[in-house]
Amino acid sequence: MINVAVLGYGTIGSGVVKVLQTNVESIARNAGEEIVVKRILDLRDFPDDPNNKLVVHDYKMIEEDEDIQIVVECMGGIRPAYTFVKTALEQGRSVATSNKELVAKHGAELIAIAREKNCNFLFEASVGGGIPLIRPLNSSLCGDVIEEITGILNGTTNYMLTKMNEEGLAFDDVLKEAQEKGYAELHPEADVEGYDACRKIAILTSLVTGKQVDFEDIHTEGISQINADDFRYAKALNCGIKLLARSWKKDDVFYAMVAPIMVEHNHPLYSIRDVFNAVHVHGNMVGDIMFYGRGAGMLPTASAVVSDVVESVHDHNVNQRLFWSSEKLKLGSLARCEGRFFVRMDKDVSKEVIEEAFGRVEYVSVEGIEEVAFVTDVMTEGAYYQAAGTVGHVIGMIRMNHK
Amino acid sequence: MINVAVLGYGTIGSGVVKVLQTNVESIARNAGEEIVVKRILDLRDFPDDPNNKLVVHDYKMIEEDEDIQIVVECMGGIRPAYTFVKTALEQGRSVATSNKELVAKHGAELIAIAREKNCNFLFEASVGGGIPLIRPLNSSLCGDVIEEITGILNGTTNYMLTKMNEEGLAFDDVLKEAQEKGYAELHPEADVEGYDACRKIAILTSLVTGKQVDFEDIHTEGISQINADDFRYAKALNCGIKLLARSWKKDDVFYAMVAPIMVEHNHPLYSIRDVFNAVHVHGNMVGDIMFYGRGAGMLPTASAVVSDVVESVHDHNVNQRLFWSSEKLKLGSLARCEGRFFVRMDKDVSKEVIEEAFGRVEYVSVEGIEEVAFVTDVMTEGAYYQAAGTVGHVIGMIRMNHK
Repeated sequence: MINVAVLGYGTIGSGVVKVLQTNVESIARNAGEEIVVKRILDLRDFPDDPNNKLVVHDYKMIEEDEDIQIVVECMGGIRPAYTFVKTALEQGRSVATSNKELVAKHGAELIAIAREKNCNFLFEASVGGGIPLIRPLNSSLCGDVIEEITGILNGTTNYMLTKMNEEGLAFDDVLKEAQEKGYAELHPEADVEGYDACRKIAILTSLVTGKQVDFEDIHTEGISQINADDFRYAKALNCGIKLLARSWKKDDVFYAMVAPIMVEHNHPLYSIRDVFNAVHVHGNMVGDIMFYGRGAGMLPTASAVVSDVVESVHDHNVNQRLFWSSEKLKLGSLARCEGRFFVRMDKDVSKEVIEEAFGRVEYVSVEGIEEVAFVTDVMTEGAYYQAAGTVGHVIGMIRMNHK
Repeated sequence: MINVAVLGYGTIGSGVVKVLQTNVESIARNAGEEIVVKRILDLRDFPDDPNNKLVVHDYKMIEEDEDIQIVVECMGGIRPAYTFVKTALEQGRSVATSNKELVAKHGAELIAIAREKNCNFLFEASVGGGIPLIRPLNSSLCGDVIEEITGILNGTTNYMLTKMNEEGLAFDDVLKEAQEKGYAELHPEADVEGYDACRKIAILTSLVTGKQVDFEDIHTEGISQINADDFRYAKALNCGIKLLARSWKKDDVFYAMVAPIMVEHNHPLYSIRDVFNAVHVHGNMVGDIMFYGRGAGMLPTASAVVSDVVESVHDHNVNQRLFWSSEKLKLGSLARCEGRFFVRMDKDVSKEVIEEAFGRVEYVSVEGIEEVAFVTDVMTEGAYYQAAGTVGHVIGMIRMNHK
C-alpha cells in the first residue's frame, strides 16, 4: 500500500482525491499496489466532505509522517508550495504537481534534487491539463529531435476566440460571458494577456532543449486587441484566429513567442474549439503530430496528476530521465524571424506608399470596413516593424501561420 | 554501448537504422548510452548501402552473438518473425516491433515471456505509426478507465476518402491513384476492406481491457461500397465519411467494429485528412482526448520503433506494465448496440412503408439523385436490420457517428 499526501484541497486537489478513490481498482492494477490518500493539507475544514478526517492544517504533520511515500502538490503559486515540494523531494519522496508557476520557475532545481535523491518530480498536469504531453514528449519522441512546438495552451482564450469567431461577438462581451461561466477569472490578465500560455511554452521548451527557458524572455501578446473586424478579415482569408504559444529551432537557435495568429483552415489547429487545448509538435523523423484534449478542469487535470502518481509508484526508486538543467537558454531575436503579416491601416494610406515600404502585398477587403488591409509577402519581423514604422497609421497586425 | 540487431531491411527496418544513425547524439542522451546497429538480417544484399557490411542472411548469426542486447523486428507477417522474436525474448533480449499481425495474434504470449524473462516486448509502431499511442494509453492514462477508442487507423483509406470527398471522384479512380502513388498496394484488400484497421483496434482493445481480443471476432466493413453519391449525401448532412475502427464499453461489456461512419463536421475526427491517422479516446476522468499524426511511412514508423528501443535501454531489466493476458475477451453482440442509420432506398419505396418499419426518420435529398434517403432515429442494430429486411430495396447504409 502506498500512502499519498495531497497539498491543497481546491479544484485540482479534490479532483485528485476523487480520481484515486473512484478508479481505485484499475489504478491499483496499473500501479501494482493500492494507492491511498492518507493526508490532505488545507487551511480550511470541509465538514460536509467524508475526506475531512484526512485534513490537516500544518505541513509538519505530513513531513513527519514516515508512512507517506508520495506528495501531490495542487496549491498553486510559488510560496509555500516551493518549500513543501523541496522538503518532500529532499526526504526522497516523489512529488506530482499541477503547478505551472512552480515548474516554470524552479523546475530545473527540483528535477536535480529528485535525481540526487533517486525519486521523481513529475508535472504532466502543469501543461495541457489532461492531455498526455510531457511524458510522450519525453519518452515516445525520444528518437526524434523536436524542431517545433505550437500549442493552443489556454482554454479560456480559446473559448473566447471561438465565441468571437462563431457568434461575431465583441471581446468585452465574450469576456463577460466567460467570467459568468467560470472559465475566466475576475482579473483575467493571466489568461487574456497570454501569461499562462507563456509559462506553459517555457516549460515545454525547457524540456525539449534541456535548458532553462525563462518565461520573462518570451515575447508575449494576448488577445485583448483582437476585435470582431479581425474575425471578418480572417474569414475572408479562410483562416481562424488562435492564441498560439510556439517555440521552434532554426539554424540551431531556439525562438519562442505567444501571440494571436491567423491559422489557415486546413491546419489541424484550426478546428480546435471551445476550451479544448492542442499541441502540435514537429520532430525531424516523426514529422507532424498533435495532442488534443481538455487543457483544464478538475477531473482531466487530476487524471494527469494521478498518472504521475502511478508512475512514481511503478518506478519507485527509479529516476525518470528529465533533461532540464539550470543552464539558461538564450532565445534568438524575433527580429530575424521570417513570416507573413496581416496588416490593417487607415483607409487614406495609398497603395503606392504601402508597396514602397512592404514590397509585394495581397490586399484583403471586407464589405463595410473602410480600411486598407493586406497580407505581406514573407519578410523578417525586423523588416516588418521598420516598414510599419515608416508608413504609420497601423490599426492592427496579426501574424499569419508560417509553414 | 548497446548493440541492436534489426530484422528485415525493408522500408521500416532501413528507417530504423536511419533514425538511429541520424539522431545518434540525442538518442544517446535520452537512452543514457550509445545505441549501435550491429547486425541487419535480410535475405538480400545491399551493395550500394554503407550498412551492407552489417547484413547477415542467417538468424543464427544474431541469436548466437552475445553482444546483442535488443532486437528490432520489422519483417512483417507471422513466420518467421514469431519464431525469431520468441527466441530473442527467451534469451532475455528486449524486442521492439512494428508488426501488427504478430502483435495482434501473439501479443499476449510474447508479453508473458518478456515478463518472465524480465525484458520487454514493445510495439508502439504497430498501431498509428509514429503517433505516440500505446505508451500514453498505458502510462499517461493509467488513472482513467478507458471507455471508448475511436480511430482513423488506416492512412490509405483515409487518403482515398479524402480524395472522394474533396474531388468527387469514384472509388475505382481514387484506388488507382492511390496505387500509383504507392499508398495502396496492388492487392489492396487489407486496407480497403478494413482488415488492417481491424488488427489495430484489436491490439488497442486488448491493451485497454487486459484480455485477448481476436480480430476475427470484430465486425469489419471496408470502404469499397462507398461511392460518390454517398459523399453528396454526407455534404447535405454536414458530415464526412471516415473509416472508423472503434471499441467501447457499455454496461461492462466491450463492443468493437470497423466500418465507414458519417462523422459530423464539429467532431475532431472530421478534419483528419489525407494519409493522417488519429485516435480519439474517452476516459472516465480525462474526458475526450485525441492523438494525431502520420500513421505510416518510413521515418514516422521508425521513430516509434526507436522510442521503444530507447525505452528498453533505459528500463534495462525492468519489465513494463503491459496487461494483456491470453484470456479471451468476449465481445458483445452489435445487435444490441444503439445508433442512428443513414439509409438509401429505391425511389419507389413509399414514405408510409418506411415510417411503418423505421418509425420517425429525417429525409435527406440531393439534387439529381432519384432515391429515398433518410436518417433513422436512435435504434438498435438488430432493429435496423429487421426494419431494412422488412422494407427491402436498400441501396446502401452508413452508420451515423454516435454521441
